[in-house]
Amino acid sequence: MAYDIAALKTRLAGLRIEENPALVRQKSRDFYWYSPTLKRQLDDVSADIVAFPSNEDEVLRILAACFDLSIPVTPRGAGTGNYGQAMPLAGGLVLDLSALDKVIEIAPGRVRAQAGAIMADIDTACRPSGQELRLHPSTYRTASIGGFIAGGSGGVGSITWGGLRDLGNIIALRIATMEATPRILELSGEALQQVSHAYGTNGIILDVEMPLAPACDWIEVMIGFDDFGTAATYANALGEQDAILKKLLSVIAAPLPQDAFLRHRKYLPADAHIVLAMIAPIAAAAFADFTARWGGWTLFRSDALSPAEAKGLPPLYELSWNHTTLRALRVDPSITYLQTLYPFPNQLDLVARIHAELGAEVPAHLEFVRFDGKITCFGLPLVRFTTEERLDDIIARHEAMGIPVFNPHRYTLEEGGMKQTDATQLAFKREADPAGLLNPGKMIAWEHPDFDFGAGRTYLFPGLRNVS
Amino acid sequence: MAYDIAALKTRLAGLRIEENPALVRQKSRDFYWYSPTLKRQLDDVSADIVAFPSNEDEVLRILAACFDLSIPVTPRGAGTGNYGQAMPLAGGLVLDLSALDKVIEIAPGRVRAQAGAIMADIDTACRPSGQELRLHPSTYRTASIGGFIAGGSGGVGSITWGGLRDLGNIIALRIATMEATPRILELSGEALQQVSHAYGTNGIILDVEMPLAPACDWIEVMIGFDDFGTAATYANALGEQDAILKKLLSVIAAPLPQDAFLRHRKYLPADAHIVLAMIAPIAAAAFADFTARWGGWTLFRSDALSPAEAKGLPPLYELSWNHTTLRALRVDPSITYLQTLYPFPNQLDLVARIHAELGAEVPAHLEFVRFDGKITCFGLPLVRFTTEERLDDIIARHEAMGIPVFNPHRYTLEEGGMKQTDATQLAFKREADPAGLLNPGKMIAWEHPDFDFGAGRTYLFPGLRNVS
Repeated sequence: MAYDIAALKTRLAGLRIEENPALVRQKSRDFYWYSPTLKRQLDDVSADIVAFPSNEDEVLRILAACFDLSIPVTPRGAGTGNYGQAMPLAGGLVLDLSALDKVIEIAPGRVRAQAGAIMADIDTACRPSGQELRLHPSTYRTASIGGFIAGGSGGVGSITWGGLRDLGNIIALRIATMEATPRILELSGEALQQVSHAYGTNGIILDVEMPLAPACDWIEVMIGFDDFGTAATYANALGEQDAILKKLLSVIAAPLPQDAFLRHRKYLPADAHIVLAMIAPIAAAAFADFTARWGGWTLFRSDALSPAEAKGLPPLYELSWNHTTLRALRVDPSITYLQTLYPFPNQLDLVARIHAELGAEVPAHLEFVRFDGKITCFGLPLVRFTTEERLDDIIARHEAMGIPVFNPHRYTLEEGGMKQTDATQLAFKREADPAGLLNPGKMIAWEHPDFDFGAGRTYLFPGLRNVS
Repeated sequence: MAYDIAALKTRLAGLRIEENPALVRQKSRDFYWYSPTLKRQLDDVSADIVAFPSNEDEVLRILAACFDLSIPVTPRGAGTGNYGQAMPLAGGLVLDLSALDKVIEIAPGRVRAQAGAIMADIDTACRPSGQELRLHPSTYRTASIGGFIAGGSGGVGSITWGGLRDLGNIIALRIATMEATPRILELSGEALQQVSHAYGTNGIILDVEMPLAPACDWIEVMIGFDDFGTAATYANALGEQDAILKKLLSVIAAPLPQDAFLRHRKYLPADAHIVLAMIAPIAAAAFADFTARWGGWTLFRSDALSPAEAKGLPPLYELSWNHTTLRALRVDPSITYLQTLYPFPNQLDLVARIHAELGAEVPAHLEFVRFDGKITCFGLPLVRFTTEERLDDIIARHEAMGIPVFNPHRYTLEEGGMKQTDATQLAFKREADPAGLLNPGKMIAWEHPDFDFGAGRTYLFPGLRNVS
């Protein structure tokens, strides 16, 4: 489809735009290449133009112009997603929101910031008030808060606070609709779920209000175990220690840490299965005594390092969540990953069974979280990739065992999620994006209402150009 | 047994003491009269003398003198316990620690205070730092922090943080031993459990270091339901909302709130079963939407009151935990209570079954908490008391159904708890109180090592004078 980009440029006179194909292509990408499937499907995706609004009025002007000209708009934060969330499948305009980066208000328990604000920068601004964000992805130092809400689900902090889907982990969102005269709406409470984790398909997030937790000089620890099952059981039990305040609790089976955590390698004995944790300093003694009960070896404690030792080490959370995947990919480009949930109360049994069956091909990586009031774990297991067919078999094997897979090799909301239409998001898209111009191709319920999720086929967006 | 009080007075020259029998008797009491059994057994208990040390050196001097003269010492905070914890069964000296009330240090995440500091006063001191105690009993405005640790188990805040038994809910304790030359010990981590909830039988708590949470202007709410089961199920589900920050979550079956909550009565429709909650302001919209899903009626919200309406209302936590009992007792002196645990994952089923069987005689009162990483509830059901035998039958009925009872009609640690010796506390008593002079009669394992908990008999401390 050809868009009238010339007319658009006229309408956007005075705004910062970019048309250089190499630069437009760069701003049309995210970390989709974690997935060999998405890499094949999306490698040629590119917008026609990128706009860089510097304030809300400019956003509204861009939206109105694109609406008039029927040009698709795909919003972009820092481009750190993994599922092609920010990739413009139908071309058109990428709306780069990174210049909307102001922290607007900090109050006890909450912060309001513009969508493009980097999460680490928000925390820096909050620090003098003794507060920090409850949740962040492992891309904390580069990801925008708006992108996290539009395309993330939780991460560091979820062991205490649950995920973004939980009522209360987002206080309010201010969004713009995609209409002839875009409206600005403020959403709170349950209404938030209409636009959170919707990849920007049904509203442009302008600013966000997020709850804050007490800021903490988290102690980073690595605990080693001879036995993977003991490591997982220990982590689960530590998760259930309600009074030991923590922000991260990951388990990574050997030899992945030894192979991939290059800067921490000297702390990691061969064959040790590793638990990563971030523990509040006030819980240090309780944590040490709890760990001693389990016979875990303390391999690394950030508060025991000299400044020279600490220098050059990445923060521990950059070994966790999808950074584990990234580090493994860097040393072995054939590696990819899955996203799974081990439902409570069978999580440890499911982890043991799938690890026993597939551990060599699919090395275990667990992230413990609070989920519906209980401690359980997500998996981000690594996959030694061979073919897409084998990857599908591995997914099927998980599902057959009762382990839901949130497929990170799909670019649609439904296929990457619960494989069903989110009626709330769809209904809101009808209101907020009646012409279907926001991030086309990502919501199957909009593009292809009769799509049969049970048929075993992958949805292919017709507008996706150049894909076999 | 007669003690050489004259010699003791010589040794304590210059210290504040009290010998007036009426005043000594008053300082030898706590809220034991909640229990008709304890009232019968302990009504004549009195010390011979009370000492009011004003600093740590005076405490040590009193302990050394009592040790030399073999005079028992029973420590006392504010006397707000319910189990005779602070009552000197063998007479001797009551050590009133209320003058050791200094807040020593406030830092991010923690506070250190002397044992006699009142919990509300600690919070007042912490408030400028934006922090408050994680946990407090409903007697927050009168109870001391040392007494809470020595004789309490949790309360307001346990829905988020679990109980005092959880590693991490106490950071450190400084205690004095009962020896010829008392030693001062600092305990942290697991070692704390030697002296916490030991009724002062194996060490005198001098000062405490406690973790802090963010201070919050908690919104007090009362939600009504037609059906008791729905109220309990709603409360359980609200407890499982990890991102809705809360400090209290209680369920009280009709007609108890209507009968006993006199100042709130106008908010309480007849026959409504009531959920009490304290919710963080940042979670207000999430909470309201969550409650709407369940069809609960919002009967009361503290943030919706005019100053005139708010005036004269007690804080909501003074309708919860053992204050529920207190308010019911005030309107009907024949009422007493139990303390029960409804173990996860069967809590709602057990609550429904026991309420169906005994609800008229034993009206339900639930306090939801985090317990070993899950949401479940304690019960503090009211009991329309007839005889001690019937009370025992009611307890037996609970236990037969799989509902453990922490019997509040017993003055010993074991019978009020898990009905077995705490080996850790016993071992530490051998070190810290070799002559057995601290709060005699409260630790069966010390007084009567061969006592058979399975025999169905109540332990009677031989030193207890004048008890039939």
